[in-house]
Amino acid sequence: MRLSRLFTRTTKNVPADETARNAQLLIQAGYIHKEMAGVYAYMPLGLKVLENIKGIVREEMNNIGGQEVLMTTLQPRDIWEKTDRWDEKKVDNWFKTKLANGTELGVGLTHEEPIVDASGNYVNSYKDLPYYVYQIGNKFRNELRAKSGLLRGREFLMKDMYSLARSQEEHEQMYEKAIEAYHRVYDRLGVGDRTYRTYADGGIFTTRFSDEFQTLSDVGEDKIFVDEAKQVAINEEIMTDENLAKLGLNRDDLVEKRGVEVGNTFHLESKYTDALDVYYTNEQGERRSIIMGCYGIGVSRLMGVVAELFSDDKGLVWPEEIAPAKVYLVRIGGDEAVRHADELYEELKSKGVEVLYDDRDARPGEKFADSELMGIPYRVTVSDRLIESEKYEFTTRKTGETSELTRSDLFAKL
Amino acid sequence: MRLSRLFTRTTKNVPADETARNAQLLIQAGYIHKEMAGVYAYMPLGLKVLENIKGIVREEMNNIGGQEVLMTTLQPRDIWEKTDRWDEKKVDNWFKTKLANGTELGVGLTHEEPIVDASGNYVNSYKDLPYYVYQIGNKFRNELRAKSGLLRGREFLMKDMYSLARSQEEHEQMYEKAIEAYHRVYDRLGVGDRTYRTYADGGIFTTRFSDEFQTLSDVGEDKIFVDEAKQVAINEEIMTDENLAKLGLNRDDLVEKRGVEVGNTFHLESKYTDALDVYYTNEQGERRSIIMGCYGIGVSRLMGVVAELFSDDKGLVWPEEIAPAKVYLVRIGGDEAVRHADELYEELKSKGVEVLYDDRDARPGEKFADSELMGIPYRVTVSDRLIESEKYEFTTRKTGETSELTRSDLFAKL
Repeated sequence: MRLSRLFTRTTKNVPADETARNAQLLIQAGYIHKEMAGVYAYMPLGLKVLENIKGIVREEMNNIGGQEVLMTTLQPRDIWEKTDRWDEKKVDNWFKTKLANGTELGVGLTHEEPIVDASGNYVNSYKDLPYYVYQIGNKFRNELRAKSGLLRGREFLMKDMYSLARSQEEHEQMYEKAIEAYHRVYDRLGVGDRTYRTYADGGIFTTRFSDEFQTLSDVGEDKIFVDEAKQVAINEEIMTDENLAKLGLNRDDLVEKRGVEVGNTFHLESKYTDALDVYYTNEQGERRSIIMGCYGIGVSRLMGVVAELFSDDKGLVWPEEIAPAKVYLVRIGGDEAVRHADELYEELKSKGVEVLYDDRDARPGEKFADSELMGIPYRVTVSDRLIESEKYEFTTRKTGETSELTRSDLFAKL
Repeated sequence: MRLSRLFTRTTKNVPADETARNAQLLIQAGYIHKEMAGVYAYMPLGLKVLENIKGIVREEMNNIGGQEVLMTTLQPRDIWEKTDRWDEKKVDNWFKTKLANGTELGVGLTHEEPIVDASGNYVNSYKDLPYYVYQIGNKFRNELRAKSGLLRGREFLMKDMYSLARSQEEHEQMYEKAIEAYHRVYDRLGVGDRTYRTYADGGIFTTRFSDEFQTLSDVGEDKIFVDEAKQVAINEEIMTDENLAKLGLNRDDLVEKRGVEVGNTFHLESKYTDALDVYYTNEQGERRSIIMGCYGIGVSRLMGVVAELFSDDKGLVWPEEIAPAKVYLVRIGGDEAVRHADELYEELKSKGVEVLYDDRDARPGEKFADSELMGIPYRVTVSDRLIESEKYEFTTRKTGETSELTRSDLFAKL
């Protein structure tokens, strides 16, 4: 894309109430627009990053057989009353709204109930199970405070998957397979080495633990204790001697850290399926409960985590796999430079390389600063001087390393 | 995809309150799930159709230079008060909700205000204009009645685009270019020959007409009058002698029809930009108003229109470009048929042909009926008898034509 045509601009103006570094950087770089606390719109480059993250999550869920659906934001009261999750005394972060006739509706904050309810249309026999079903869509949570930018939204994009199994054993296999897919997602996003499977509270209806995925970060809201050797962690909220013994963890091996929860997985047992009267019939013709798991990944939160972790005093530093473009092409100089840069832009595009082409009439320093703030992995500069020596300046955003490359070396790198 | 693994099933059970044929068919075929009146969830095959339609719309908007963003569902009151569209006496189909502290929020029913507000961050000079910006996202409208399935939703997927121009002349050019893109969208969806640009009321703040795109259908809510020779129409609501004269239309050339509004485009003049204090500075350094247009396409409504129009007594008949798969592969018989069908399935997949493979243990009649109900364009049957004669049965859903093809003829067709 030519920057002269992109309607967003980098800016120094950040809303005064924006205290989170991830949102500050993303606003400055023109990736997001703050609608209100905890509610952000995605501008063209921000949407590209979000779509790239969605793409990775989708691929890994499809790889384990996940079937994608899209549930609704507006929610009818009845299915939530069956699981006793409608009452605001039980679930305190609903947004609610009303039909013109006064009927109260929920604004989707999670989707176990509608997923189970829809599944009831299709599941009868043991032959109809097991399966994974997932969606990538907006969730709405009425948070009292929302000060962490994309890390805690009132409106945010989430991938939520559900497994429906015929037995506890089948459930355990599906659960672990999903956990493996989660690790692949974090690896591909470049945060795998600092993201720990973390034992946490299982919720009100199971004595088992849930698993959180915690990415180490100073801005994390959670206190966790990491066992480096075992590559697992435990959330402070469940760190009792009894639980440590149960989990085979030793207090002396644990190091205190702060983490951002970038995913969580729960054993739902048959709470939702039983409550919504969705059963299956086994080979002997007997009615049996369906065992469920649920698996969440905060897609927009991950964008915030990556923005926050991979940044420096000059701006964002996107990992290549989710960057909105691979190359930031800087043009410096007159007609000759324009011709050379235009040609290079077209050639890179034709080879499938995503390029942000800074074709604006702006000072070189401004172009370099924008390329750094926007965090594009590689910067290529075309200038009159470089044209004369038949070279391109090539700079890696992450390391700051700069070299002058011949044309063939440049194409080899990209 | 193997049907044995797809978690949805075709069904004869349709909710008793579902009277719209498009929704009845889509529910029977397992494409959608009714959450409540006017609110539908998309199951895997339904989501594929929806994504295919989105893909076409996105391509055509990108082709005219549209830049994609994603605005938010939760809306702050202040920007809507500036345009006097917050008060429910002025706009009567808002869904509203509240933050925990009591602050009232809107649930996005359209997005002129937030788009203009966000644009204000980036637009200063004449060099920053013109542009098109669009999104494909959910809209929420508190409709009193929602009885037409996907044709009138309380929650529905819409593409909304906005043009920001520096002058009336520039606006007119952008407006007509968008109209051309709209015609290409309808052509590609297979409804171009029955979709008319239709003059309609321009709204409260302009004396000009708006344009609707009306697809002829007996279930349409709008009465329109078509001039076949001119390939345009006029909505009954503005059909006065004065307007006919203004538009150069003659009452005698007009034929009354019913239409479904599948798109609309408005001249917004500078109502929103002025109200939200977003201006630009021209080459002489003078402050000038920004002239806007807005352009809507009901993406989920189009899915309903196509389902309703292209159907027969056996079920759905998807146009190839948006069908969830190109081929429905029916397997009849024992081990030999399994081996042959498995091979064909893998080979078609490897050639990039999307296949729904009916590998279930079910009667042939059931498989044929499902393939018809689901509306997949081509059915290929592998059976013991056909294997013996080295043929495949090939049936076109639209025409019902069946022939027996050799392997090479089959691959040539697909």
